[in-house]
Amino acid sequence: MKNLDVLYARPGHLVRRCHQICVSLFLDECGPFDITPIQYAVLAALEASPGIEQIKLAGLVALDRSSTGYVIDRLEARALVRRQPCPSDRRLKRISLTLLGEVLIRDMHDYVERAQERILAPLNREERVQFMKLLTRMADVNNEFSRAPLVLAEKRLSA
Amino acid sequence: MKNLDVLYARPGHLVRRCHQICVSLFLDECGPFDITPIQYAVLAALEASPGIEQIKLAGLVALDRSSTGYVIDRLEARALVRRQPCPSDRRLKRISLTLLGEVLIRDMHDYVERAQERILAPLNREERVQFMKLLTRMADVNNEFSRAPLVLAEKRLSA
Repeated sequence: MKNLDVLYARPGHLVRRCHQICVSLFLDECGPFDITPIQYAVLAALEASPGIEQIKLAGLVALDRSSTGYVIDRLEARALVRRQPCPSDRRLKRISLTLLGEVLIRDMHDYVERAQERILAPLNREERVQFMKLLTRMADVNNEFSRAPLVLAEKRLSA
Repeated sequence: MKNLDVLYARPGHLVRRCHQICVSLFLDECGPFDITPIQYAVLAALEASPGIEQIKLAGLVALDRSSTGYVIDRLEARALVRRQPCPSDRRLKRISLTLLGEVLIRDMHDYVERAQERILAPLNREERVQFMKLLTRMADVNNEFSRAPLVLAEKRLSA
Protein backbone atom coordinates (compact mmCIF):
# COMPACT_ATOMS: atom_id res chain seq x y z
CA MET A 1 0.00 0.00 0.00
CA LYS A 2 1.91 2.99 -1.28
CA ASN A 3 -1.18 5.17 -1.18
CA LEU A 4 -3.01 6.10 2.00
CA ASP A 5 -6.39 6.12 0.25
CA VAL A 6 -6.55 2.37 0.87
CA LEU A 7 -6.09 2.90 4.62
CA TYR A 8 -8.53 5.83 4.69
CA ALA A 9 -11.27 3.79 3.03
CA ARG A 10 -11.08 0.88 5.48
CA PRO A 11 -13.98 0.47 7.90
CA GLY A 12 -11.63 -0.06 10.86
CA HIS A 13 -9.89 3.25 10.24
CA LEU A 14 -13.16 5.14 9.74
CA VAL A 15 -14.70 3.65 12.86
CA ARG A 16 -11.66 4.71 14.89
CA ARG A 17 -11.90 8.26 13.55
CA CYS A 18 -15.65 8.34 14.29
CA HIS A 19 -14.99 7.03 17.79
CA GLN A 20 -12.45 9.80 18.42
CA ILE A 21 -15.01 12.32 17.16
CA CYS A 22 -17.73 10.89 19.43
CA VAL A 23 -15.43 11.19 22.45
CA SER A 24 -14.38 14.74 21.49
CA LEU A 25 -17.98 15.90 21.00
CA PHE A 26 -19.04 14.28 24.28
CA LEU A 27 -16.22 16.04 26.15
CA ASP A 28 -17.02 19.33 24.40
CA GLU A 29 -20.67 19.23 25.40
CA CYS A 30 -20.22 17.67 28.84
CA GLY A 31 -17.02 19.50 29.75
CA PRO A 32 -18.35 21.15 32.94
CA PHE A 33 -19.09 17.71 34.43
CA ASP A 34 -15.56 16.37 33.86
CA ILE A 35 -16.91 12.91 33.02
CA THR A 36 -15.71 10.68 30.15
CA PRO A 37 -18.13 8.73 27.94
CA ILE A 38 -17.11 5.48 29.64
CA GLN A 39 -17.56 6.92 33.13
CA TYR A 40 -20.97 8.14 31.99
CA ALA A 41 -21.92 4.66 30.72
CA VAL A 42 -20.98 3.19 34.10
CA LEU A 43 -23.07 5.78 35.93
CA ALA A 44 -26.01 5.11 33.61
CA ALA A 45 -25.75 1.36 34.19
CA LEU A 46 -25.67 1.94 37.95
CA GLU A 47 -28.75 4.11 37.72
CA ALA A 48 -30.56 1.29 35.90
CA SER A 49 -29.14 -1.51 38.10
CA PRO A 50 -28.34 -0.19 41.57
CA GLY A 51 -26.25 -2.51 43.73
CA ILE A 52 -24.98 -4.54 40.76
CA GLU A 53 -21.86 -6.66 41.16
CA GLN A 54 -18.72 -5.30 39.44
CA ILE A 55 -18.27 -8.09 36.85
CA LYS A 56 -21.91 -7.83 35.73
CA LEU A 57 -21.53 -4.08 35.50
CA ALA A 58 -18.60 -4.54 33.07
CA GLY A 59 -20.83 -6.64 30.80
CA LEU A 60 -23.67 -4.11 30.91
CA VAL A 61 -21.44 -1.36 29.53
CA ALA A 62 -19.28 -3.54 27.23
CA LEU A 63 -16.08 -2.79 29.10
CA ASP A 64 -13.27 -5.10 30.17
CA ARG A 65 -13.00 -5.88 33.85
CA SER A 66 -9.80 -4.06 34.64
CA SER A 67 -10.99 -0.85 32.97
CA THR A 68 -14.27 -1.16 34.86
CA GLY A 69 -12.39 -1.41 38.16
CA TYR A 70 -10.33 1.63 37.25
CA VAL A 71 -13.42 3.66 36.28
CA ILE A 72 -15.12 2.75 39.57
CA ASP A 73 -12.02 3.82 41.51
CA ARG A 74 -12.15 7.21 39.86
CA LEU A 75 -15.88 7.65 40.40
CA GLU A 76 -15.57 6.52 44.01
CA ALA A 77 -12.79 9.06 44.59
CA ARG A 78 -15.25 11.73 43.45
CA ALA A 79 -17.96 10.34 45.74
CA LEU A 80 -20.23 9.57 42.78
CA VAL A 81 -20.45 5.83 43.50
CA ARG A 82 -19.93 3.59 46.51
CA ARG A 83 -18.75 -0.03 46.84
CA GLN A 84 -20.28 -2.31 49.47
CA PRO A 85 -19.48 -5.96 50.13
CA CYS A 86 -22.15 -8.50 49.10
CA PRO A 87 -23.81 -9.96 52.21
CA SER A 88 -23.58 -13.48 50.70
CA ASP A 89 -19.90 -13.26 49.68
CA ARG A 90 -17.89 -10.43 51.14
CA ARG A 91 -15.18 -10.75 48.47
CA LEU A 92 -17.72 -9.52 45.89
CA LYS A 93 -18.53 -5.83 45.76
CA ARG A 94 -21.88 -4.30 44.95
CA ILE A 95 -21.71 -0.85 43.36
CA SER A 96 -24.30 1.91 43.69
CA LEU A 97 -24.65 5.58 42.85
CA THR A 98 -24.40 8.00 45.72
CA LEU A 99 -26.95 10.79 45.93
CA LEU A 100 -24.36 13.03 44.26
CA GLY A 101 -24.03 10.46 41.43
CA GLU A 102 -27.80 10.33 40.98
CA VAL A 103 -28.04 14.09 40.68
CA LEU A 104 -25.07 14.26 38.31
CA ILE A 105 -26.41 11.74 35.83
CA ARG A 106 -29.80 13.46 35.73
CA ASP A 107 -28.12 16.83 35.21
CA MET A 108 -25.98 15.44 32.38
CA HIS A 109 -28.87 14.07 30.32
CA ASP A 110 -29.50 17.07 28.04
CA TYR A 111 -25.77 17.66 27.49
CA VAL A 112 -25.25 14.04 26.46
CA GLU A 113 -28.20 14.23 24.07
CA ARG A 114 -26.73 17.34 22.48
CA ALA A 115 -23.46 15.50 21.87
CA GLN A 116 -25.38 12.66 20.20
CA GLU A 117 -27.15 15.14 17.92
CA ARG A 118 -23.82 16.64 16.89
CA ILE A 119 -22.41 13.17 16.13
CA LEU A 120 -25.24 12.54 13.66
CA ALA A 121 -25.44 16.12 12.35
CA PRO A 122 -23.70 15.34 9.02
CA LEU A 123 -26.56 13.00 8.07
CA ASN A 124 -30.14 13.87 7.12
CA ARG A 125 -33.10 12.35 8.94
CA GLU A 126 -33.47 9.35 6.65
CA GLU A 127 -29.73 8.65 6.61
CA ARG A 128 -29.60 8.74 10.41
CA VAL A 129 -32.21 6.02 10.66
CA GLN A 130 -30.36 3.92 8.10
CA PHE A 131 -26.96 4.50 9.72
CA MET A 132 -28.19 3.63 13.22
CA LYS A 133 -29.85 0.46 11.89
CA LEU A 134 -26.63 -0.71 10.21
CA LEU A 135 -24.40 0.34 13.11
CA THR A 136 -26.62 -1.54 15.56
CA ARG A 137 -26.58 -4.69 13.43
CA MET A 138 -22.80 -4.52 13.08
CA ALA A 139 -22.31 -4.16 16.84
CA ASP A 140 -24.84 -6.84 17.75
CA VAL A 141 -23.89 -9.51 15.20
CA ASN A 142 -20.16 -8.99 15.86
CA ASN A 143 -20.61 -8.64 19.64
CA GLU A 144 -19.22 -12.11 20.32
CA PHE A 145 -15.91 -11.16 18.67
CA SER A 146 -15.35 -8.19 20.97
CA ARG A 147 -12.84 -8.60 23.77
CA ALA A 148 -15.30 -6.64 25.90
CA PRO A 149 -18.71 -7.80 24.65
CA LEU A 150 -21.99 -6.32 25.79
CA VAL A 151 -23.73 -8.75 28.15
CA LEU A 152 -27.38 -7.87 28.54
CA ALA A 153 -28.91 -7.94 31.99
CA GLU A 154 -31.51 -10.54 30.99
CA LYS A 155 -28.92 -12.90 29.55
CA ARG A 156 -26.84 -12.60 32.69
CA LEU A 157 -29.84 -13.44 34.82
CA SER A 158 -30.80 -16.49 32.78
CA ALA A 159 -27.21 -17.77 32.58
CA MET B 1 -32.53 7.26 32.39
CA LYS B 2 -33.69 4.29 34.40
CA ASN B 3 -33.52 2.02 31.41
CA LEU B 4 -30.31 1.13 29.58
CA ASP B 5 -32.09 0.94 26.21
CA VAL B 6 -31.59 4.71 25.92
CA LEU B 7 -27.82 4.30 26.37
CA TYR B 8 -27.66 1.30 24.05
CA ALA B 9 -29.40 3.20 21.25
CA ARG B 10 -27.05 6.19 21.33
CA PRO B 11 -24.65 6.59 18.40
CA GLY B 12 -21.69 7.30 20.73
CA HIS B 13 -22.20 4.02 22.57
CA LEU B 14 -22.66 2.01 19.36
CA VAL B 15 -19.58 3.56 17.76
CA ARG B 16 -17.52 2.67 20.84
CA ARG B 17 -18.74 -0.94 20.70
CA CYS B 18 -18.00 -1.11 16.96
CA HIS B 19 -14.54 0.33 17.57
CA GLN B 20 -13.82 -2.33 20.20
CA ILE B 21 -14.99 -4.98 17.73
CA CYS B 22 -12.78 -3.56 14.95
CA VAL B 23 -9.75 -3.68 17.24
CA SER B 24 -10.58 -7.22 18.41
CA LEU B 25 -11.04 -8.52 14.85
CA PHE B 26 -7.83 -6.84 13.73
CA LEU B 27 -5.89 -8.43 16.60
CA ASP B 28 -7.55 -11.79 15.92
CA GLU B 29 -6.56 -11.78 12.26
CA CYS B 30 -3.17 -10.11 12.64
CA GLY B 31 -2.16 -11.80 15.90
CA PRO B 32 1.07 -13.37 14.60
CA PHE B 33 2.45 -9.92 13.74
CA ASP B 34 1.84 -8.48 17.23
CA ILE B 35 0.88 -5.09 15.78
CA THR B 36 -2.06 -2.93 16.91
CA PRO B 37 -4.36 -1.13 14.44
CA ILE B 38 -2.76 2.20 15.35
CA GLN B 39 0.78 0.86 14.93
CA TYR B 40 -0.35 -0.50 11.57
CA ALA B 41 -1.72 2.90 10.51
CA VAL B 42 1.61 4.51 11.39
CA LEU B 43 3.53 1.91 9.38
CA ALA B 44 1.16 2.41 6.42
CA ALA B 45 1.63 6.18 6.55
CA LEU B 46 5.41 5.73 6.64
CA GLU B 47 5.24 3.45 3.63
CA ALA B 48 3.31 6.14 1.73
CA SER B 49 5.41 9.06 3.04
CA PRO B 50 8.93 7.87 3.87
CA GLY B 51 11.04 10.33 5.87
CA ILE B 52 8.01 12.31 7.09
CA GLU B 53 8.34 14.57 10.14
CA GLN B 54 6.68 13.27 13.32
CA ILE B 55 3.99 15.97 13.68
CA LYS B 56 2.89 15.55 10.07
CA LEU B 57 2.77 11.80 10.58
CA ALA B 58 0.34 12.27 13.48
CA GLY B 59 -2.02 14.22 11.21
CA LEU B 60 -1.82 11.60 8.46
CA VAL B 61 -3.10 8.88 10.79
CA ALA B 62 -5.47 11.07 12.88
CA LEU B 63 -3.56 10.47 16.09
CA ASP B 64 -2.57 12.92 18.82
CA ARG B 65 1.09 13.85 19.07
CA SER B 66 1.96 12.14 22.31
CA SER B 67 0.38 8.83 21.22
CA THR B 68 2.26 9.10 17.93
CA GLY B 69 5.54 9.53 19.79
CA TYR B 70 4.76 6.52 21.95
CA VAL B 71 3.85 4.36 18.94
CA ILE B 72 7.08 5.33 17.19
CA ASP B 73 9.08 4.43 20.33
CA ARG B 74 7.52 0.97 20.30
CA LEU B 75 8.09 0.44 16.59
CA GLU B 76 11.65 1.70 16.86
CA ALA B 77 12.34 -0.73 19.71
CA ARG B 78 11.26 -3.51 17.35
CA ALA B 79 13.51 -2.15 14.58
CA LEU B 80 10.52 -1.56 12.29
CA VAL B 81 11.10 2.19 11.95
CA ARG B 82 14.03 4.56 12.38
CA ARG B 83 14.26 8.21 13.42
CA GLN B 84 16.80 10.51 11.78
CA PRO B 85 17.39 14.23 12.45
CA CYS B 86 16.26 16.62 9.69
CA PRO B 87 19.32 18.12 7.96
CA SER B 88 17.70 21.60 8.09
CA ASP B 89 16.68 21.47 11.78
CA ARG B 90 18.26 18.75 13.87
CA ARG B 91 15.58 19.09 16.58
CA LEU B 92 13.04 17.71 14.12
CA LYS B 93 13.03 13.99 13.43
CA ARG B 94 12.22 12.30 10.15
CA ILE B 95 10.73 8.83 10.46
CA SER B 96 11.14 5.99 7.97
CA LEU B 97 10.42 2.29 7.74
CA THR B 98 13.38 -0.03 8.07
CA LEU B 99 13.67 -2.90 5.62
CA LEU B 100 12.08 -5.09 8.29
CA GLY B 101 9.17 -2.63 8.55
CA GLU B 102 8.71 -2.62 4.77
CA VAL B 103 8.54 -6.40 4.66
CA LEU B 104 6.18 -6.55 7.64
CA ILE B 105 3.62 -4.15 6.22
CA ARG B 106 3.56 -6.00 2.91
CA ASP B 107 3.16 -9.33 4.69
CA MET B 108 0.28 -7.98 6.80
CA HIS B 109 -1.82 -6.77 3.87
CA ASP B 110 -4.01 -9.85 3.37
CA TYR B 111 -4.54 -10.33 7.11
CA VAL B 112 -5.68 -6.73 7.51
CA GLU B 113 -8.06 -7.10 4.58
CA ARG B 114 -9.56 -10.21 6.16
CA ALA B 115 -10.21 -8.28 9.38
CA GLN B 116 -11.99 -5.56 7.36
CA GLU B 117 -14.18 -8.17 5.68
CA ARG B 118 -15.15 -9.59 9.06
CA ILE B 119 -16.03 -6.12 10.36
CA LEU B 120 -18.53 -5.66 7.53
CA ALA B 121 -19.71 -9.29 7.45
CA PRO B 122 -23.07 -8.55 9.18
CA LEU B 123 -24.11 -6.34 6.23
CA ASN B 124 -25.03 -7.35 2.69
CA ARG B 125 -23.26 -5.86 -0.31
CA GLU B 126 -25.65 -2.96 -0.78
CA GLU B 127 -25.72 -2.14 2.94
CA ARG B 128 -21.91 -2.10 3.06
CA VAL B 129 -21.77 0.54 0.36
CA GLN B 130 -24.40 2.60 2.15
CA PHE B 131 -22.74 2.19 5.56
CA MET B 132 -19.29 3.14 4.29
CA LYS B 133 -20.72 6.20 2.54
CA LEU B 134 -22.43 7.43 5.72
CA LEU B 135 -19.47 6.55 7.96
CA THR B 136 -17.09 8.44 5.66
CA ARG B 137 -19.33 11.50 5.62
CA MET B 138 -19.66 11.45 9.40
CA ALA B 139 -15.89 11.22 9.89
CA ASP B 140 -15.08 13.86 7.26
CA VAL B 141 -17.70 16.47 8.14
CA ASN B 142 -17.01 16.09 11.88
CA ASN B 143 -13.25 15.85 11.40
CA GLU B 144 -12.65 19.39 12.69
CA PHE B 145 -14.27 18.49 16.03
CA SER B 146 -11.88 15.61 16.67
CA ARG B 147 -9.08 16.20 19.16
CA ALA B 148 -6.91 14.23 16.76
CA PRO B 149 -8.19 15.22 13.31
CA LEU B 150 -7.02 13.68 10.08
CA VAL B 151 -4.74 16.12 8.24
CA LEU B 152 -4.34 15.13 4.61
CA ALA B 153 -0.88 15.23 3.07
CA GLU B 154 -1.95 17.68 0.33
CA LYS B 155 -3.46 20.11 2.84
CA ARG B 156 -0.28 20.01 4.89
CA LEU B 157 1.81 20.72 1.84
CA SER B 158 -0.33 23.64 0.67
CA ALA B 159 -0.60 25.14 4.16
